[in-house]
Amino acid sequence: MIDEKSLMRSYMTAANQLGGHGKWKVGMLKDAFAEVEGSLGADVYGRGPHIEPFQAEMAGLLGKEAAVFFPSGTMAQQIALRIWSDQVGCKRVAYHPLCHLEIHEQDGLKELHHLEPLLLADKDRLITLEDVLAIEGDLSCLLLELPQREIGGQLPPFGELEAISAHCRERGIRLHLDGARLFEILPYYGKTAAEVCQLFDSVYISFYKGIGAVAGAILAGPEAFTEQSKIWKRRHGGDLISLYPYIISSAYYFRQRIGKMGLYYEGAKELAALFNSCPHVSTLPKVPVSNMFHVHIALAKEKLEPILASVQVETGIGITRYLKETEDGINSFEVSIGDAYSAIPQEETRKVFRLLAQRLEESDR
Amino acid sequence: MIDEKSLMRSYMTAANQLGGHGKWKVGMLKDAFAEVEGSLGADVYGRGPHIEPFQAEMAGLLGKEAAVFFPSGTMAQQIALRIWSDQVGCKRVAYHPLCHLEIHEQDGLKELHHLEPLLLADKDRLITLEDVLAIEGDLSCLLLELPQREIGGQLPPFGELEAISAHCRERGIRLHLDGARLFEILPYYGKTAAEVCQLFDSVYISFYKGIGAVAGAILAGPEAFTEQSKIWKRRHGGDLISLYPYIISSAYYFRQRIGKMGLYYEGAKELAALFNSCPHVSTLPKVPVSNMFHVHIALAKEKLEPILASVQVETGIGITRYLKETEDGINSFEVSIGDAYSAIPQEETRKVFRLLAQRLEESDR
Repeated sequence: MIDEKSLMRSYMTAANQLGGHGKWKVGMLKDAFAEVEGSLGADVYGRGPHIEPFQAEMAGLLGKEAAVFFPSGTMAQQIALRIWSDQVGCKRVAYHPLCHLEIHEQDGLKELHHLEPLLLADKDRLITLEDVLAIEGDLSCLLLELPQREIGGQLPPFGELEAISAHCRERGIRLHLDGARLFEILPYYGKTAAEVCQLFDSVYISFYKGIGAVAGAILAGPEAFTEQSKIWKRRHGGDLISLYPYIISSAYYFRQRIGKMGLYYEGAKELAALFNSCPHVSTLPKVPVSNMFHVHIALAKEKLEPILASVQVETGIGITRYLKETEDGINSFEVSIGDAYSAIPQEETRKVFRLLAQRLEESDR
Repeated sequence: MIDEKSLMRSYMTAANQLGGHGKWKVGMLKDAFAEVEGSLGADVYGRGPHIEPFQAEMAGLLGKEAAVFFPSGTMAQQIALRIWSDQVGCKRVAYHPLCHLEIHEQDGLKELHHLEPLLLADKDRLITLEDVLAIEGDLSCLLLELPQREIGGQLPPFGELEAISAHCRERGIRLHLDGARLFEILPYYGKTAAEVCQLFDSVYISFYKGIGAVAGAILAGPEAFTEQSKIWKRRHGGDLISLYPYIISSAYYFRQRIGKMGLYYEGAKELAALFNSCPHVSTLPKVPVSNMFHVHIALAKEKLEPILASVQVETGIGITRYLKETEDGINSFEVSIGDAYSAIPQEETRKVFRLLAQRLEESDR
């Protein structure tokens, strides 16, 4: 019998997957450390080798005065908003209704920092300049996520970002960038990381999305801000005696993949077109603007699951391990392109979509 | 010229050190992963291999229903106190004036959790049953640190612990164990970890003290408590996508060293006696009750530093990298015994103390 578990199992046991960088396994750490000398000293409570040079390198790349390595983006972003809120003297911050802080962090921002988020825009569209102009009352900080992950990874036009930034500066609102996937959008904007970040007062980037490292994040901004973030990092319990397991692997995969973001973006556009060629299927966005998109399939879960599982078993290529049901009977899943996609021979990819299209078509009969 | 830097430098460049497990270096992680199969899957957000079996093993060892792996003790302990405080419905908690939460965490407990600590006992002595009996008003939780690190690693008699525990249970006060060095005190008490922990409602243990791993902590207690701690772990930003770099190395060094705690304890007693045989020198406690003690030397810093540095240079054995001046002109430093001590030939250790005693004696002339 083909059930939800079969979807997961057929995905996990497939030899290849369309998305990602390959299996999430311990070898990722081992590979990153293979060429590292064991006699190298470790970082100690935020000081010393690995952490200080990597922070300086990331600050330079992002065009900010300073940067701090954090074990997680959850910790880094709550802290960023807290510092701006304290500095402005106002607990009110604004972000998208599907912001990571609102839906994935067990309300840490409210429970630990007592900040009061204003949810801007409807949940199925981007925050616009108009939304920002319409904010009434005091606001310490606006967080923008580029791309907006939960709606498929959408982006505003760069000119609109510039206008939002200019308005925030004029009104004294701090602008923070949730740049978990910042590197992944640079090919579309045709900008450097620093050119995007100069619109923002502070920025967070992640190392286990497009970069594909084990875990870890950087928070960058003015030096007074990053110095304060170190105090909060200790308060949160994130100032570990040694963070080098994450820093060395982040640096390793950063060097391996930072030059491939254009390739991932092209792969995403190609793959989205293949999905869109199948009956009942559409992607969001239709044409990706980063390495990611969401696939929406207008077919009941009990019909769709066995179709996907069978294609995964027969082709040995994983499409998705889950389906998320939306209110209007659509099933969706996320695809993020990494190294895995270009490792699959084109003929095999075409076979996946031939088979998928055929089975979806048959489902109508 | 011999200055503070020379003390640090001569310690760091010495071939061996009296305390610790050897140099703090990247090889610690590499050694722990050398025999691990790269194809092994990784843990994902608190689930899967490595994390779940290790948590279950530690829960069993500590005699608690469940356990959760945390990146740091700072995070684990704030969360423990917060959960007990919420459960009891009272923000007042009690601990020693030199508790880690009071002096090393930038007031995270107050700034993030708004708890109100009552400081029990004078800072230079242990909390007694009498102190606990004298507490007036409501209290949600009492934290005891065994051994009390900042006063040299002292311990109350086990019978007094039992009496404190019984009193807390009677009064409905939750008792939490800061067991950063729990394994290190078991030889002195002659108890198992579970026998000590059954006096407490919750316990935190660390993996980079006596165990000497890279970083990481376990928080254990009733299942309802540990389940809540997972929610707070996510709020704090400690629920990393993968924690296996710390978990695998914690498990590796745990197996290597858990059987050596008696050896470390014997080493500490032997080494403390050698320190106490030198003029101007005394240890706290006089006879250690764990693998650690503090060395107090009644000599001015500008006289003492060059003496220690010269002994370190001439013998190639590191004694300390720092001196902490106390109010009454005493200089002190901490020693924790690990693998390094027994690796030094006894003749060389005796040479260190002959030379140290001689130079300290000469300093009087």
